[in-house]
Amino acid sequence: MHLTPLLSQLVLSRRLRQTPFEPRAREHNARAYTIYNHMPLACSYESPEADYHHLCQQVQIWDVACERQVEVSGVDALKLVELVTPRAVASSRIGECRYAPLVDEFGGIVNDPIIIRLAATRFWLSTADSDVLLWLKGINYGRGYDAQVFEPEVSPLAVQGPKATDLMADLLGEAVRELRFFHFITARLADTEVIIARSGWGGQGGFEIYLQDSARGLALWDCIWAAGEKYQIRAGCPNHIDRIESGLLSYGNDMTLANNPYECGLARFIDLHKEAEYMARAALTRIAAAGAEKSLAYLTLAGAPLSAPRTELPVLDATGRDIGILTSMAYSPKFATNLAFATVATAANQHGAIVQVEVGEKTPRAARVVNRQWQ
Amino acid sequence: MHLTPLLSQLVLSRRLRQTPFEPRAREHNARAYTIYNHMPLACSYESPEADYHHLCQQVQIWDVACERQVEVSGVDALKLVELVTPRAVASSRIGECRYAPLVDEFGGIVNDPIIIRLAATRFWLSTADSDVLLWLKGINYGRGYDAQVFEPEVSPLAVQGPKATDLMADLLGEAVRELRFFHFITARLADTEVIIARSGWGGQGGFEIYLQDSARGLALWDCIWAAGEKYQIRAGCPNHIDRIESGLLSYGNDMTLANNPYECGLARFIDLHKEAEYMARAALTRIAAAGAEKSLAYLTLAGAPLSAPRTELPVLDATGRDIGILTSMAYSPKFATNLAFATVATAANQHGAIVQVEVGEKTPRAARVVNRQWQ
Repeated sequence: MHLTPLLSQLVLSRRLRQTPFEPRAREHNARAYTIYNHMPLACSYESPEADYHHLCQQVQIWDVACERQVEVSGVDALKLVELVTPRAVASSRIGECRYAPLVDEFGGIVNDPIIIRLAATRFWLSTADSDVLLWLKGINYGRGYDAQVFEPEVSPLAVQGPKATDLMADLLGEAVRELRFFHFITARLADTEVIIARSGWGGQGGFEIYLQDSARGLALWDCIWAAGEKYQIRAGCPNHIDRIESGLLSYGNDMTLANNPYECGLARFIDLHKEAEYMARAALTRIAAAGAEKSLAYLTLAGAPLSAPRTELPVLDATGRDIGILTSMAYSPKFATNLAFATVATAANQHGAIVQVEVGEKTPRAARVVNRQWQ
Repeated sequence: MHLTPLLSQLVLSRRLRQTPFEPRAREHNARAYTIYNHMPLACSYESPEADYHHLCQQVQIWDVACERQVEVSGVDALKLVELVTPRAVASSRIGECRYAPLVDEFGGIVNDPIIIRLAATRFWLSTADSDVLLWLKGINYGRGYDAQVFEPEVSPLAVQGPKATDLMADLLGEAVRELRFFHFITARLADTEVIIARSGWGGQGGFEIYLQDSARGLALWDCIWAAGEKYQIRAGCPNHIDRIESGLLSYGNDMTLANNPYECGLARFIDLHKEAEYMARAALTRIAAAGAEKSLAYLTLAGAPLSAPRTELPVLDATGRDIGILTSMAYSPKFATNLAFATVATAANQHGAIVQVEVGEKTPRAARVVNRQWQ
């Protein structure tokens, strides 16, 4: 039962907000969707495997409007953004994107957005699937800060895959090749001003284009599509197999409010001594001093291909003792085995250790603890 | 295009959390789902129409675990709950449930939960589809209140329909017949302590049973199912047709953060002069003084049955001028016409007025402004 994701009909209404690109995803026959930030997000077109192989070789266009932005601007904007993350934000420059876990006063992860610095006192937080808008609004109100916190009319569209740079250079000129990872520029495309960042929720590289006028959504899609035809462009979406192979964690799957960043492999984004005030400092300092009891493990599971689990699967040590949970999994064509993320007891998280996972078969499946490169 | 809800495959992962009753919804072949508070919610079993007719005559069991609870407890619990709603909470008694829109400092609706008073300083907010947990956590932190704000392990299961009271009396004794609307008791069912409220997201009456031990979810379902067989119990879900006929608004569909409660027909839940401090008072006082520019309209649309719209539909006056949006709609077997909620210019919201709605046909469909009883 664990291993069969529920596949059923999805019914949408106004509550699950329409994306500016949604008609194109329909026309290209997206076969499966999930819901993310109260919006539909396609999960596969031809099939996750066929989509994966195309993504690794060509270029795809992805409707990722569900990566909703939270704008924080005004006098206290920097103070508010610093308050909610253990990563330093003040040192980021205008034109830079910075991955930053948002952490509450107990050390729990609220979200893990990219923070985009548009101006000295203007930020977009490009969020994963939780209402960061409401959390920031609450803190801003409670603290009495002089900042505006709102959801701007912004919808990202991603261009991903090895041919993405050629495509964008055709559209915008050769200079775009020099755009560095996690940096952005502004440009005009399809008669509308967009922000173009070298980023994307995958391992194949590419760009995210931040549309600011929803009425231009289809025109923007069509303009990229036309430029992409010579590169065999297809409609695609963040690909589960590519995500796991690339080691990208997913908020809600691999970390939740019940987790602290140390147990999710995010220690490198924590600066316990950053200059600005932040609400998680005391909690994270305590956890760091005591040592996190759990930690992120990378597992390979030999044998027949396994699917993404509906819910967490129990992980046991060699003696059958419960040591944690498997949170995401995919069969990898590249590594020719099943790859998975797990949250396990730190003491049991030893490179090369053999553990067991209850995948819903008669007996647990053996798994090996590997490193971030799946070795 | 507007009138075809996107129907596609839904893919679930751990991020869209499993409910304690989910295996039963699958076994009873729920045909369509939506996502609500990061959890699956069935939308139909046999069909919305067949489900509706059965609901109006018999009794159904609904997995509404997605009505997530936010617990607020501790010294400042009442102060925090009062702060976030314009409705008085202090006067509610232990054992009472109270519908209360949550409204921010600008007058925008954040959610419209039922507030359940468990003790003098302990509340559950039974929420609609937005992360109220994060908003309240942010305010609590920002204000430095002495309250605990968290999501308890609570999943509601509803028993709805005209036979619901007979069924519950068989299980719990005749005294349950005396339980008043929006009041609750504690009881033991299926060997676990539950809270039982006379409430439900529909017009046919019934109970909501708040499970507190997820491991007992299937046992609780089975215990109710066994008692319900003599009443022709079926698995069901909040029914769209019944919701519209009953005049129940849906957060995200009929009201959003962009709306104030005056324009959504919620004026009766606003006490501008309530004793406790609340964050929306200044904004709501201004809106009340100026008069809300928009208001909730009830529309009937004659002609062929129409479906629930994917997104808002434009509403025009008789001269073709844009006066608002239609937000929800269903064909009603009871009234033998299409019923809809709309948000329109207050000046145009006149009982008996004929307006037009762009439903995606060649010409707009004529509609009549009616009262809350659809007359």
